[in-house]
Amino acid sequence: MPRGRRNGRGDTMEIEDILLEMKDTSELMVDLAYSALLYDNEEIARQVMELEGQVDSWDQEVQRKAVERAIEDRDVEKALVFIRLADSIENIADGAVLIADVVLRDIEPHPVVKAALKESDTTIVTVTVPGRSKLVGRTLGELKMASETGMWVIAIRRGERWIYGPDENTRVEERDLLVARGPVEGEGELRRLVKE
Amino acid sequence: MPRGRRNGRGDTMEIEDILLEMKDTSELMVDLAYSALLYDNEEIARQVMELEGQVDSWDQEVQRKAVERAIEDRDVEKALVFIRLADSIENIADGAVLIADVVLRDIEPHPVVKAALKESDTTIVTVTVPGRSKLVGRTLGELKMASETGMWVIAIRRGERWIYGPDENTRVEERDLLVARGPVEGEGELRRLVKE
Repeated sequence: MPRGRRNGRGDTMEIEDILLEMKDTSELMVDLAYSALLYDNEEIARQVMELEGQVDSWDQEVQRKAVERAIEDRDVEKALVFIRLADSIENIADGAVLIADVVLRDIEPHPVVKAALKESDTTIVTVTVPGRSKLVGRTLGELKMASETGMWVIAIRRGERWIYGPDENTRVEERDLLVARGPVEGEGELRRLVKE
Repeated sequence: MPRGRRNGRGDTMEIEDILLEMKDTSELMVDLAYSALLYDNEEIARQVMELEGQVDSWDQEVQRKAVERAIEDRDVEKALVFIRLADSIENIADGAVLIADVVLRDIEPHPVVKAALKESDTTIVTVTVPGRSKLVGRTLGELKMASETGMWVIAIRRGERWIYGPDENTRVEERDLLVARGPVEGEGELRRLVKE
């Protein structure tokens, strides 16, 4: 469920907005963590680790704002619901981090990976868009990324922000980190396309 | 990433198979928990609670099998990776349960729900297929479920099993519990279709 709710810095956001950001981020983290594990991809695992810091600081932000709001409106129960929700999402994020940690700490490929690959010839790829790429300024729809390369862009990291579940109208920018999933053969084609 | 890996009872499955089941189940739990929260749906929240019991028993199963295998192959590290992975997934599942618990315990609709609904006219619906439904024995593709009603079946509960991310080839059976997401107007159409 991608949404257009990127409000920028946490301290100007409402509690509800932060919780929805946390929700999207934790879902992305779980997706990335499992992808990192199944495709034995350390780059993806590191992205999960970085996202954890963001979720942590949102968690604290929600706690602070919830207490501040309770002082104003004297509604203890509502504040506790906010705090409990943020902690639950933090819990999910922690699980994703633990999985990413297995990927980063382990030396040999996991037996789990082998089990998964038995049934799958898909892979996951991260690629940074260089400034001179023909992709810059064009939408994923215009680029026919999915139909041309078979690779599906599941997320884009833009600076410190993440775009979750980008769609055909999402425009590629310089230095975007694209996270894409698709057939093993698609990896080369995607890299070629990005470098053009 | 739906897969065709439903091997039936846990005790005849390999560790790798159980971990992949756990992965799919935890992803479904996170999805259902957030859906329960956003659409304030207690039925979905209860499904999350039930899935937790399954994940718990798989976690213990992995621990037992990992130790048994270590006795055979004397590979301590591998056993620890299995145990750590199962615990990480359990962690994610716990986060989903905590969110579902907020939905079940709370009396009034959440402020979070309101925030989400501001931007969304989607809903989530669970509906059980009666024995005499015209749907029984037909695939989701044949039924043109998504294009006819706008509702997307995200999961099917069949007895104690779950089908994650069913596709156009998935056949509907008597007493299936369909979990579908889509526009508010689609709910009535889906219920009508199922009852026909």
